Amino acid sequence: MGRGDLDPEEIVRLEEDGPRVVLLDQRKLPDEVVEVVCGSAAEVADAIRTMVVRGAPAIGVTAAYGLALAALRGEDMDAAEAVLAASRPTAVNLPWALAQMRGDPTPERARALHREEVDRCRRMSAHAAELFGPGTRALTHCNAGGLATGGYGSAVGALRAAWERGLLTHVLVDETRPLLQGARLTAWELETAGIPHAVIADGAAAAMMARGEVDVVVTGADRIAANGDTANKIGTYGLAVLAAHHGIPLYVVAPTSTIDRATPTGAGIPIEERDPAEITTRFTARNPAFDVTPAALIAAIITEDGVWSA
Amino acid sequence: MGRGDLDPEEIVRLEEDGPRVVLLDQRKLPDEVVEVVCGSAAEVADAIRTMVVRGAPAIGVTAAYGLALAALRGEDMDAAEAVLAASRPTAVNLPWALAQMRGDPTPERARALHREEVDRCRRMSAHAAELFGPGTRALTHCNAGGLATGGYGSAVGALRAAWERGLLTHVLVDETRPLLQGARLTAWELETAGIPHAVIADGAAAAMMARGEVDVVVTGADRIAANGDTANKIGTYGLAVLAAHHGIPLYVVAPTSTIDRATPTGAGIPIEERDPAEITTRFTARNPAFDVTPAALIAAIITEDGVWSA
Repeated sequence: MGRGDLDPEEIVRLEEDGPRVVLLDQRKLPDEVVEVVCGSAAEVADAIRTMVVRGAPAIGVTAAYGLALAALRGEDMDAAEAVLAASRPTAVNLPWALAQMRGDPTPERARALHREEVDRCRRMSAHAAELFGPGTRALTHCNAGGLATGGYGSAVGALRAAWERGLLTHVLVDETRPLLQGARLTAWELETAGIPHAVIADGAAAAMMARGEVDVVVTGADRIAANGDTANKIGTYGLAVLAAHHGIPLYVVAPTSTIDRATPTGAGIPIEERDPAEITTRFTARNPAFDVTPAALIAAIITEDGVWSA
Repeated sequence: MGRGDLDPEEIVRLEEDGPRVVLLDQRKLPDEVVEVVCGSAAEVADAIRTMVVRGAPAIGVTAAYGLALAALRGEDMDAAEAVLAASRPTAVNLPWALAQMRGDPTPERARALHREEVDRCRRMSAHAAELFGPGTRALTHCNAGGLATGGYGSAVGALRAAWERGLLTHVLVDETRPLLQGARLTAWELETAGIPHAVIADGAAAAMMARGEVDVVVTGADRIAANGDTANKIGTYGLAVLAAHHGIPLYVVAPTSTIDRATPTGAGIPIEERDPAEITTRFTARNPAFDVTPAALIAAIITEDGVWSA
């Protein structure tokens, strides 16, 4: 496997011979490139819960494969869908993908959904790149890359597309505590793509903006409410406030599968609280995994269909 | 040693029998309570540089003991002062303390300076506590505690004083990447003081403010320019912007030894860039250790002399 240069099926695939779902273990990247094998829908759900795979679109694709796996194995399909749906609460791509599979829980349908999601990434990234001026220096948070989407990436896809067009000069990458998806996954993807970058502590983003070293902030999304309020990795809301204070646009790049039209505003988005041990095991800690950025702080939301401004 | 319940001489002391300067190794807390012994001014400077001891007032006190050690050993005093002064660039307490020792580089003078610094902490903390209303929930960043000041603390001193007066109900502690002074040192001090607290990822502070869980932000300072612009641990400036956005006051608690009247504004404060390996060794990184908060974003600066509002 080329490090970071991943085919979609290297991130997640269904092997009918088994049958099994095989996932690249994103918890161990970039130090170790190892796979996790799931033999049932419950094992796929456990892999989502423990973040073997993470990123809203990738979670959706993985759940679709999980449902196809359950059908191949003759599992109780209601139970399989329930266990997958309950694996993580915030990303709406998860229930969306399960709904897409209803009535046709086949490997072919899951693979088509995976292909479509990667296609959406390429289209939204092309739209987003049109917002970049020449010589853009970007800042991104967490990993909205190929790993998070099953291939190519949303926010990182936009950075790839801008780089290919000669519009991007440098990317600052928030390390993204507690699980360091920026320092581990985004830096790895940018390195492989040959895009100049530097990892910073999350707390350093404001100083970089004040120094005039950030022209644009680009992130993905885990769920976008009907009014444009956006749940994304904890720390995104703070970046949005800081970007507004410094007159820097914040762009959210995400497929339409991330939009939840049934939830009117961000107040209705469930926010996952994860194990405090991800922060510290020695003292009391709190660990919300996501926050909500009001639409008013988002300069544009870019999907495969185009650019949406407030 | 009572864990976290430190006498000033447990943090730093000069032993004339040796002679040597003995420092509590703050890099290893709270997992290990071990001391580092310095036999020369150069070794004291190295301990400051490598952050065996950190925190602006504690650095100043340690440098004073280092100069007294040099005098006891018959070192070249100009060279000793130079090596100590060059150990870290941002905290102005370091050159301030060395200037205080000129003409009388004795153990007695260093111990008096240490005592005075802890006395200043108690006085400024009492002033700061008067700004706390009943039921205050505070957020703090890095460690401006007893460890950082040679005893009692500045920002943590204010929290102690407010707690003793029954005005404080809870403290959120930014873990403070990359060196985790919040998660390791401040949580340890608050635990020992019996003050309810929870550690959060630095990126979670904004969400906690948006949820209405923060009434006041309290930090220390490494250098305060004549106009009130304040250099402090990287991340403080971002907190100040976020606090202003949410209508939450940010208080800076620091002794007058942290005020640099010779530097008109924050633009003149040197910002230390530390080893990128503190962030990641696998990818390119940048690691500014401090940022500058404009005076306009600081609700009040509290010193031993009283409360100063913009």
